[in-house]
Amino acid sequence: MLGEAVRIAVDAMGGDRAPQDVVSGCLAALDAYPDVRILLVGRPEAVEPCLAGRDDERLRLVPAREVVGMDESPAQALRKKKDSSIAVCAGLLRKGDVSAVVSAGNTGAVVAAAMFAARLLPGVHRPGIAVTFPTTEERPVVLCDAGANIHCKPDHYAQYAIMAAAYAEDVLGVARPRVALLNIGTEEGKGGSGLRAVREHLEAVSARGLFRFVGAVEANHVFEGEADVVVCDGFTGNMVLKAAEGASRAVVEYLAAFAARGDHDDRARQALTEALERLQTFTHYAEYGGAPLLGIDGCAIIAHGRSDARALQNAVRVARDFALRRVNEHIATRIGAAQDEAVET
Amino acid sequence: MLGEAVRIAVDAMGGDRAPQDVVSGCLAALDAYPDVRILLVGRPEAVEPCLAGRDDERLRLVPAREVVGMDESPAQALRKKKDSSIAVCAGLLRKGDVSAVVSAGNTGAVVAAAMFAARLLPGVHRPGIAVTFPTTEERPVVLCDAGANIHCKPDHYAQYAIMAAAYAEDVLGVARPRVALLNIGTEEGKGGSGLRAVREHLEAVSARGLFRFVGAVEANHVFEGEADVVVCDGFTGNMVLKAAEGASRAVVEYLAAFAARGDHDDRARQALTEALERLQTFTHYAEYGGAPLLGIDGCAIIAHGRSDARALQNAVRVARDFALRRVNEHIATRIGAAQDEAVET
Repeated sequence: MLGEAVRIAVDAMGGDRAPQDVVSGCLAALDAYPDVRILLVGRPEAVEPCLAGRDDERLRLVPAREVVGMDESPAQALRKKKDSSIAVCAGLLRKGDVSAVVSAGNTGAVVAAAMFAARLLPGVHRPGIAVTFPTTEERPVVLCDAGANIHCKPDHYAQYAIMAAAYAEDVLGVARPRVALLNIGTEEGKGGSGLRAVREHLEAVSARGLFRFVGAVEANHVFEGEADVVVCDGFTGNMVLKAAEGASRAVVEYLAAFAARGDHDDRARQALTEALERLQTFTHYAEYGGAPLLGIDGCAIIAHGRSDARALQNAVRVARDFALRRVNEHIATRIGAAQDEAVET
Repeated sequence: MLGEAVRIAVDAMGGDRAPQDVVSGCLAALDAYPDVRILLVGRPEAVEPCLAGRDDERLRLVPAREVVGMDESPAQALRKKKDSSIAVCAGLLRKGDVSAVVSAGNTGAVVAAAMFAARLLPGVHRPGIAVTFPTTEERPVVLCDAGANIHCKPDHYAQYAIMAAAYAEDVLGVARPRVALLNIGTEEGKGGSGLRAVREHLEAVSARGLFRFVGAVEANHVFEGEADVVVCDGFTGNMVLKAAEGASRAVVEYLAAFAARGDHDDRARQALTEALERLQTFTHYAEYGGAPLLGIDGCAIIAHGRSDARALQNAVRVARDFALRRVNEHIATRIGAAQDEAVET
């Protein structure tokens, strides 16, 4: 009716607020996006009560008996729990029953399952997790890789630049994204010989018009809107992601403690509560809806473990946009163009 | 009169708010700590007007004609600007005229000048910058190294653990500090073979009673009070420091924009303004007063470039406590004990 439908498998058991918030987020997504079909994967006895009697032909429950815990070792968990919600979601992706998977569960397990289920796009060496942060400017910033690939060679960074720039353009609507290399300083020699080689490679690929490289940024600049895409190895990206989360959560908790003090009058308390709610939204990254694993021939969206219903709804939206706007075709074309002239590094 | 006096050289020209806030911070420190003597180093024509006519026998102005810019290359700047305030401060330390140096200027230049001015303590392989953060718990956390030493061997981490634990005990008053290794996960195999070797080495040195190792923490846990001392290489530590700063600054700016909206009544605006001031204090780390460069035979305190008068006063206090409480003797004893049995790694 409304053009192409997008089929998305959602891990109903993943995340701190599963299954209720996951299910609520899916129901809201069905209302908001008429072209979405959702396969809700999890233990029927846990998921069904969350549906509140909703009967929608665009929603199907797919049973999975097991759940991968947030702190389980991903490799072991996937080996032992063949019928976990994450494994079943990945299976649906592998069989082509869905074009995207969304999970707020164990990140390592989602990445491993998605990589098992979907091949890499032609020419891609390593997948990368692209996390979107708010900045002090109007537009968000995409950081890639946030933890899929700990040690990176120069060409991995260049591919992250290509892939994350395509994502920023197609899904976040950023025109001609400025790509920067994360470093501990902006001068040429910073970060040692390894990062110097990375910088030179990024400059060379950028010169061929495959993305717009603007030099190095430091980790604080990531949040100041100095670039639209920031590339780094997965170890560093994971550190930046978690440090940013931990520090901003500490700030919000500090404000919450202040707001909870008994000596505010009603107007003051109301203003502080509103401020707190806004900050929580700002720092929960809920508006950005999760991080795609870029580079696979499919779409896997890793939602935050703390995702609430709105975050989950947004993750479904990102999965939908990723599929409808053909981000992977865009990526494959550019990776191919880069390879035509590339020297393997 | 009041026992031993501590002589401290303060870089009057360093930092975004120099010289006025630096001078004001020094004057406040002289009022607060009767045992402190300050040598204020900088351009006399810039510094003198900031003194507001204060004449104190415990304060002396030491002229330095040049200033190292915040964004200058440290090595080049120190080579060219022999009469910069940072170089003159370091010269006073080298000659033994002062027992500590405080600067809110170019961090790289302060580190390089301090390492040139003071030898390493016996047995120390590499100095490390120890940064103190607030946490969501009552007590702060010390992260070392925050950027002095980009690539680290296992024994460098163990020495950071020893040095930062001594600092946490002696200056921050933390009894039996819990030392953790920063990693991207808490399981044994995380972070690759390099960090596995580091972990094993930390466990071995900890088993000999030289500090209390509690395992790995992720970057978000740093801000949740899960450890008192967190060790990492300088590249990673610098990323975590700057990501935390950038993210918390983004949160505070977001709140400031909300507070500045025109539709709050007086009580609401007053509450929001107070909340904002408290958050700025919390996130500026002013209370913690700057980061010592641990491992040198002397004391260099790197204050934040944004330091205001209070932060500067606190940096002077940290320098004073560092000297009076003989942190370096404590460090040297433990490093010696570690070396007695150590296998060079």
